[in-house]
Amino acid sequence: MTFRERGNGFMKRLKMTVAYDGTEFAGFQRQPGKRTVQGVLEDVLTRLTGNDVQITGAGRTDSGVHALGQVIHFDTSCPIPIDRWVRVLHHTLPCDLLVTKAEEVSTGFHSRKSACWKRYRYTLDTGKLPDLFQRRYRTHYPHRLDCARMNTAARHLLGTHDFTSLSAAKAQVKDRVRTLYHCEVREKDSRIVMIEVVGSGFLYHMVRIIAGTLVDIGVGKTAPGDLPGILSAKDRSAAGKTFPPEGLTMMEVGYTPWFIS
Amino acid sequence: MTFRERGNGFMKRLKMTVAYDGTEFAGFQRQPGKRTVQGVLEDVLTRLTGNDVQITGAGRTDSGVHALGQVIHFDTSCPIPIDRWVRVLHHTLPCDLLVTKAEEVSTGFHSRKSACWKRYRYTLDTGKLPDLFQRRYRTHYPHRLDCARMNTAARHLLGTHDFTSLSAAKAQVKDRVRTLYHCEVREKDSRIVMIEVVGSGFLYHMVRIIAGTLVDIGVGKTAPGDLPGILSAKDRSAAGKTFPPEGLTMMEVGYTPWFIS
Repeated sequence: MTFRERGNGFMKRLKMTVAYDGTEFAGFQRQPGKRTVQGVLEDVLTRLTGNDVQITGAGRTDSGVHALGQVIHFDTSCPIPIDRWVRVLHHTLPCDLLVTKAEEVSTGFHSRKSACWKRYRYTLDTGKLPDLFQRRYRTHYPHRLDCARMNTAARHLLGTHDFTSLSAAKAQVKDRVRTLYHCEVREKDSRIVMIEVVGSGFLYHMVRIIAGTLVDIGVGKTAPGDLPGILSAKDRSAAGKTFPPEGLTMMEVGYTPWFIS
Repeated sequence: MTFRERGNGFMKRLKMTVAYDGTEFAGFQRQPGKRTVQGVLEDVLTRLTGNDVQITGAGRTDSGVHALGQVIHFDTSCPIPIDRWVRVLHHTLPCDLLVTKAEEVSTGFHSRKSACWKRYRYTLDTGKLPDLFQRRYRTHYPHRLDCARMNTAARHLLGTHDFTSLSAAKAQVKDRVRTLYHCEVREKDSRIVMIEVVGSGFLYHMVRIIAGTLVDIGVGKTAPGDLPGILSAKDRSAAGKTFPPEGLTMMEVGYTPWFIS
């Protein structure tokens, strides 16, 4: 007897907060023949619930990108009590994928459409040698970065802009106007540099290109005052390199309080 | 032309400090057909120097055990300047193996025989869910531990004892008398518990059995006062479980200052 048969028949919507080490995933989105976050989650949830579970994530992270606060939702009639889900999934999911929170929400809730903001962190290790135990979660960039200079530049990114210059040229989406609420560069232990961004939404590769562009400013290759020009060029080649995925972590997704339950 | 042919012919002894993430190594010691720290290092050093390099480590760590301060030595006629080795090896070794320091030492230096003490750390994550980004370096043990109780017990281990009860029954060595200089349990962020031990030498599985035995005391299964009896029993079955390798890291090896250069 599956959980479905034991279920009370009522479908309910669950919201789950998901953390993963992206190193060994080919990104969030399901792809045939590849190990993806969506694929592993759907397979495990389908097996567990007896429902044909299809999950929706707040955002699609790229191959190699991590998450501590990805959010998903799905519908199920499974009778597992809501306070048991985290433990049940901890014992069922592989060790690089963790559900840290499970909540029952109204069917009006949608992990992507209801999201108000997303917070990402890009972490650089500027030490001569990488910190071995953190190497999977930081981009090793052994150069001195001027964080004050990077913060001056970051302020130009705040607000609503067309972010064409700071997103992958091959991105399909037409409307490239997004709002950045927060963009701050912090230094820790004089070797770790963290770029924290909060925005209404992010275009393809946008955080990794912001990281590459701010690093160019941090090493003195370009000036903070160049940023308005880079933005108004609406040309990908005006900005810096796309930095590698390992430094990027999806930290948090924000919703209005109404949707929770 | 190899480095050997370019070399000045003088053999010199190099001491190197080595860090590794043990997760994907079958331990330190070379074994045919397996990926080991010694195997990878010897292959890379042989290729780089043209000498048939054989390294000696301060201690053999088990499969899955990490190191931040393992020490090796080997002889070579390779003319790579001593201050270049760290960088050259950083670009040659795989990303889970790092040489953090290279020094030229007298031929009287021996990484194992000259060692005065070794420091190991065993790290437990007592949170309900593991810290995802640290999971490879901590043993997940989601139970409350009484660190004061564990420290009271730890004091019984200090000094010179026959550690038969706290070493693997299958260990081959006859003399099981070792000296423990330091054994301390510390709590961090109210979920991380670190057991730090410094000793003249350690028997097979000794630190992992000390961890398992102190944890039994920390959860109240046994009492701190039981430790003298456990030691004097000279019987492996008197002590606690052998805890898993992922929590263990070889931190540092101590030498008398005379041997350096």
